[in-house]
Amino acid sequence: MTITENTKILIVGLGLIGGSYAMALSRQGYKVSAITLEESSIKYALEKDLIVYGTTTPEPELIAQSELIIFSLYPHVFKQWIKDYGRYISPGTLVTDVTGVKSGIVYDIQAMLPKGAEFIPAHPMAGREVYGVENSDDSIFRGANYIVTPTAANTPQAIEECKKLGAILGFAAISVLSPEQHDDMIAFLSQLTHCIAVALMTCNDTEGMEFYTGDSFRDLTRIARINDDMWSELFMLNRDALLRHMTAFENELDKLRKTLLTSDRDEMRRMMRKSTQRRALFDKKI
Amino acid sequence: MTITENTKILIVGLGLIGGSYAMALSRQGYKVSAITLEESSIKYALEKDLIVYGTTTPEPELIAQSELIIFSLYPHVFKQWIKDYGRYISPGTLVTDVTGVKSGIVYDIQAMLPKGAEFIPAHPMAGREVYGVENSDDSIFRGANYIVTPTAANTPQAIEECKKLGAILGFAAISVLSPEQHDDMIAFLSQLTHCIAVALMTCNDTEGMEFYTGDSFRDLTRIARINDDMWSELFMLNRDALLRHMTAFENELDKLRKTLLTSDRDEMRRMMRKSTQRRALFDKKI
Repeated sequence: MTITENTKILIVGLGLIGGSYAMALSRQGYKVSAITLEESSIKYALEKDLIVYGTTTPEPELIAQSELIIFSLYPHVFKQWIKDYGRYISPGTLVTDVTGVKSGIVYDIQAMLPKGAEFIPAHPMAGREVYGVENSDDSIFRGANYIVTPTAANTPQAIEECKKLGAILGFAAISVLSPEQHDDMIAFLSQLTHCIAVALMTCNDTEGMEFYTGDSFRDLTRIARINDDMWSELFMLNRDALLRHMTAFENELDKLRKTLLTSDRDEMRRMMRKSTQRRALFDKKI
Repeated sequence: MTITENTKILIVGLGLIGGSYAMALSRQGYKVSAITLEESSIKYALEKDLIVYGTTTPEPELIAQSELIIFSLYPHVFKQWIKDYGRYISPGTLVTDVTGVKSGIVYDIQAMLPKGAEFIPAHPMAGREVYGVENSDDSIFRGANYIVTPTAANTPQAIEECKKLGAILGFAAISVLSPEQHDDMIAFLSQLTHCIAVALMTCNDTEGMEFYTGDSFRDLTRIARINDDMWSELFMLNRDALLRHMTAFENELDKLRKTLLTSDRDEMRRMMRKSTQRRALFDKKI
């Protein structure tokens, strides 16, 4: 399968990310259909020209004729969907996803797909703290990272097409990692940060703090507004890696605490300088 | 002292915050002079009309004729300055500051000032990760918080004038806290967040993470670019409060870790919902 302007694209799950994919693709002239739970999401996506066709029913013909299918569902819903309707996917179809954890699901999905259909997993490193297709915004991909996470079962062609999809969507950096490397990376970069934000937000019940805060607390807790249903599932699916990074972070915070306790200002400043130096790597390049 | 359009204002320390104060005041027609270390800062501030007069010398006549003096210096430099030149401050002068910790310095400053000059401390909750007068930007005060932290030695009039200064500068919310309440609040809202950002930035040396990261890690580490000289001093001056909040945060993170270890998804989700609910309070109102 090679993505061209005529490729029949199907997005399953029109939420914030599915909708933003649809927006990016439709704006460039691709023909996108969608299957999603809510009639209202279809209606919105049609009105805003995010899709050319949408349905709340997993129509076998629609699935069978689609050449590129992108899944934007919670992990357990994704698996169940493939179990229920995966048999309608035609040989030669390229299947990809946006799921935030990989090793716990990609091998199962690959095993369940019909012969000749290829699942090449990917993770767009972009999001917002609001949900639903109504908040779709393809500008979130600008300057952002996109990670393709192939298994040994994937073909070089599928990996190339999946990277091409990332480029079409507008991502700035497109990388390839194994599902296991991805999950370790994401446990640190995304899941640990959400744990920290939640703990920071809930560890102090003092009233009125919003009148005293500066931007640093706002920044560290932006993601404390969290979809508990989705994130608790992602955490559980990547538990070991997340626990490992939590421990490493707590040990480091303890090192900093020790510099305070012992008034070791030199070591405190050394940590701060290392921090400053490393942070320079992470500025978004837009 | 009542602030009017003719009040002779002196800013001591033309860095990012001193410069941004000068910008906000000058744009509204106030006459601002400055004393600062570097000739280049004076030159820049004059060129950009941030000040009408500037000098690197603590000129006794300039100090004596100033009616409102704003100190924007590191805590130990502030104390030393008052020790060296405070005697030139005239009776009736209102003295204020922007220092990030209060109880460790305000009583000393008040004790050192000449009779009749009043020091009313304040803390503007705004900043950037860049330094120097060249990065001055008075838009950082928009939507931000400003805290006046009087002691028992302060007069109601001085408190009112200091609140008025916050309003003139453009702050959105102006509050009054005791120095001790302020320091406890700031240990949590500002200092703990900087500790977390530093530990998160330094606890993992894996290379290439900048190609995989999303915005959450960028947000949590924005302040990991940190002025080690200034922040280590602020941390040391507020050590006990900071250590107390570090402990509370670590205990909360351990609670979250336990939900992972025991697969207690219900409790994990309960913490996330509490987090989401509390975070709604902290959106910036611009």
